[in-house]
Amino acid sequence: MDANTRKKVLRLIPYGLFVATSRADQQIGAGTINWVTQTSFTPPLVVVAIQLDSSLHETIAASRVFALHVIRKNQKDMATAFFKGAQPDGDTLNGYRIESGATGAPILLDAPAWFECRVVDEIRRGDHTIFVGEVMEAGLRRDEEPLTLRDTGFFYGG
Amino acid sequence: MDANTRKKVLRLIPYGLFVATSRADQQIGAGTINWVTQTSFTPPLVVVAIQLDSSLHETIAASRVFALHVIRKNQKDMATAFFKGAQPDGDTLNGYRIESGATGAPILLDAPAWFECRVVDEIRRGDHTIFVGEVMEAGLRRDEEPLTLRDTGFFYGG
Repeated sequence: MDANTRKKVLRLIPYGLFVATSRADQQIGAGTINWVTQTSFTPPLVVVAIQLDSSLHETIAASRVFALHVIRKNQKDMATAFFKGAQPDGDTLNGYRIESGATGAPILLDAPAWFECRVVDEIRRGDHTIFVGEVMEAGLRRDEEPLTLRDTGFFYGG
Repeated sequence: MDANTRKKVLRLIPYGLFVATSRADQQIGAGTINWVTQTSFTPPLVVVAIQLDSSLHETIAASRVFALHVIRKNQKDMATAFFKGAQPDGDTLNGYRIESGATGAPILLDAPAWFECRVVDEIRRGDHTIFVGEVMEAGLRRDEEPLTLRDTGFFYGG
């Protein structure tokens, strides 16, 4: 297999962009992710793949919960703000106001939609862990077209 | 959790559309799927969630291999042709010409790009099985913007 061809082909998979958060006791984890897919209707399950060496991985592995926030077309700034992980400061996270969700994960008040999961399975293989989450709570403030990875010109895949 | 809100929120996750194929001995399985994400760079892994009661599920579970085909913007017809599962006829599948891939899975000659995987893990939970595939082969005929689920107006999520 040619590695460059493989990279080009895998980068053709369309993705959204999400801000993922978690909280384990007093430690908050956060990051921008795109490796997300639903995997079941009943019960409602999603898969997220989380980079091993990250605060997000550490807090999800410890707390077994996470929240995913959908980002609007004009919220690329929010996506880039979470490239650097979690920077909590009072009732803000990376400069965005938060409240505590049903699972204890921080919920971003500016996100148009979000859902919260508890981890029901995981597979640690390769450079990310695959967490399978059952959707426990969901909220919708604005039903708008979400930002996609292609919109941003960024790549995370290959 | 309000079920209608949950459905609306999960439908905000962006997806591509892919034709998935597999072959177990003489049985060919195929279907249009969108629950796909990469989950590791090294080794290159992807997750697909496959409906339990389908020829695609049966053949992947038996052969432990599958191929995923990327679809171009103007190939919505190809996506809809595989809603009904696999209909092989000589060297065609659902009316599209095929050849045998490195894994034995049928490869659609009209797809702009494809990759082939061997199953390295699986989780059977809910109404789909989560197959983790290691990418073994990839091919690119045309590097074009792929069709997305949103482009088609279809939904598969919630």
